[in-house]
Amino acid sequence: MTTEKEYIAYINRALSEINYPQQPSGLYEPIAYTLDCGGKRIRPMLMLAVAEALGADKSVAVNQAVGLEMFHNFTLLHDDVMDRADMRRGRPTVHVKWNEATAILSGDAMLTMASQFMGRGCDGKLAEVLDLFNRTAIEIYEGQQYDMDFESREGVTAGEYIEMIRLKTSVLLGCACRMGALMAGGDEVVQKAFYDYGMYLGLAFQLQDDWLDTYGDPKLFGKKIGGDILNDKKTLLLITALNRADKEMKSRLVSLFGTRSDEKIAEVMAIYAALDVESECRSMICDYSAKAIACLDRAGLSPEAREFFEEIARQSLNRKS
Amino acid sequence: MTTEKEYIAYINRALSEINYPQQPSGLYEPIAYTLDCGGKRIRPMLMLAVAEALGADKSVAVNQAVGLEMFHNFTLLHDDVMDRADMRRGRPTVHVKWNEATAILSGDAMLTMASQFMGRGCDGKLAEVLDLFNRTAIEIYEGQQYDMDFESREGVTAGEYIEMIRLKTSVLLGCACRMGALMAGGDEVVQKAFYDYGMYLGLAFQLQDDWLDTYGDPKLFGKKIGGDILNDKKTLLLITALNRADKEMKSRLVSLFGTRSDEKIAEVMAIYAALDVESECRSMICDYSAKAIACLDRAGLSPEAREFFEEIARQSLNRKS
Repeated sequence: MTTEKEYIAYINRALSEINYPQQPSGLYEPIAYTLDCGGKRIRPMLMLAVAEALGADKSVAVNQAVGLEMFHNFTLLHDDVMDRADMRRGRPTVHVKWNEATAILSGDAMLTMASQFMGRGCDGKLAEVLDLFNRTAIEIYEGQQYDMDFESREGVTAGEYIEMIRLKTSVLLGCACRMGALMAGGDEVVQKAFYDYGMYLGLAFQLQDDWLDTYGDPKLFGKKIGGDILNDKKTLLLITALNRADKEMKSRLVSLFGTRSDEKIAEVMAIYAALDVESECRSMICDYSAKAIACLDRAGLSPEAREFFEEIARQSLNRKS
Repeated sequence: MTTEKEYIAYINRALSEINYPQQPSGLYEPIAYTLDCGGKRIRPMLMLAVAEALGADKSVAVNQAVGLEMFHNFTLLHDDVMDRADMRRGRPTVHVKWNEATAILSGDAMLTMASQFMGRGCDGKLAEVLDLFNRTAIEIYEGQQYDMDFESREGVTAGEYIEMIRLKTSVLLGCACRMGALMAGGDEVVQKAFYDYGMYLGLAFQLQDDWLDTYGDPKLFGKKIGGDILNDKKTLLLITALNRADKEMKSRLVSLFGTRSDEKIAEVMAIYAALDVESECRSMICDYSAKAIACLDRAGLSPEAREFFEEIARQSLNRKS
């Protein structure tokens, strides 16, 4: 079987072979810059791996893999404008390196180009492919909207938070896996099994991201630990803490909102420890990872193929960066 | 035949029947607000009129008409963010009424929804429909990029300006007309004839817009006359003036750049008059309108249908608002 590394190399080659028009360079250079970011390529990798696991050649889904990675990077590009984020993966974001208008317009072009790639080489599956892609895109916008809404809303529940990250992050992994099955000719049961696998994997992934932001090793994580705490981001950790805290502890937590210091990070982490918040988060990650693996029962895989997808789900538990 | 008014009512009804999800309202309310704008609906109107002129019922293209109007309004929404425009059609723009993040995200959702409408009810034509739509969208982003580039570039030629407005504005009218022919089952010759008709009509329309901005009747035009002059916008009028001016006149023009006063408008208009710039612009508008009408020879229309499209092209010459 193809290894993860080989998939990533295959995807990076396909991305580097995209033929952008020379002009107007102000539109196309930021797109090439955004895609040349050294991302994990987890979504296209999953898509191609599913297609191969079902007996197809990975080339049957290469256009869809490029389209999905293009789409994912478009969402990052626009999210960075919305969140006013200056850096991404160690480089200035597009709206910083160029300007905001460029970031908006290049993102729009990436969304349309993603749609074009999605439709390539689909033959009789075009309607299904685009339906899955567009439906997923709408869910992701809904997730981003909820994420922004939650910033200024009190009383967000753990259930609402999970639904938000399901929409914002997980459905795209579900879509990637299902698209691979669809392009390989898998039936509805197999497609659904892979969609659910990707979705649960996505939940585990996002919760692991949240956990790393507070409990990660700064040397491996690649950015400062405690950013979510400093920004009062309503992650599962904070929501669980607010739920479990008694009146006094809750008012201590709330009194720290809006402040930014290393002492704040330490104090919030002490509260998390007192309330055993970390283990709640860890147990949910384990749970979603196990649920992802259970979906593989319905996917009709060979033992080797199954092992590949199980290993990815297990890795998501131990990911350090 | 259906009248223009009836087409507009039909389109407005179809737009008002779009079923938006209730939540998250922060995503969907700005979309409904944007579409409930009382625009001219020229693009969907043209699409439906072409379909009917070729013997189809207008319902064959209603989804594509809604999709194209959705797309057009998405471009206005994002352009208003890029241009920092506060008002559109007498109402605050979305980034003013809500905020910038909302304007970006709602626009993204409109682009995906436009794509969804485009693909509805296409049967065997799905690939062709999406190909035309996506190709046109990319051209429009290129046009917007050139428009932004020209702001800070000297020596923009009339030819470059025409190519910019062709991309930014005219291809969408071409796309609308061609889409109507495609959905009605017109062959390639007829589709191309209507594409060219729409494209030339679009050039005439945009140049008429430019002309109205300087020479329109403020009571009918609906906004202040002279905005382009105040903003040093490189329209055909200014480009022609810079080309025709002798050294002294050119330096007078250039010395006014960056200033903003009623005297500036009067002085620039005096220079335009001395250089006979207006008549150059008027003659190009006539020319493109005549070219649009000539394309109808290839469209195989009944006399009544031909008259309808000729009348639209003639109106574009005399439009006051």
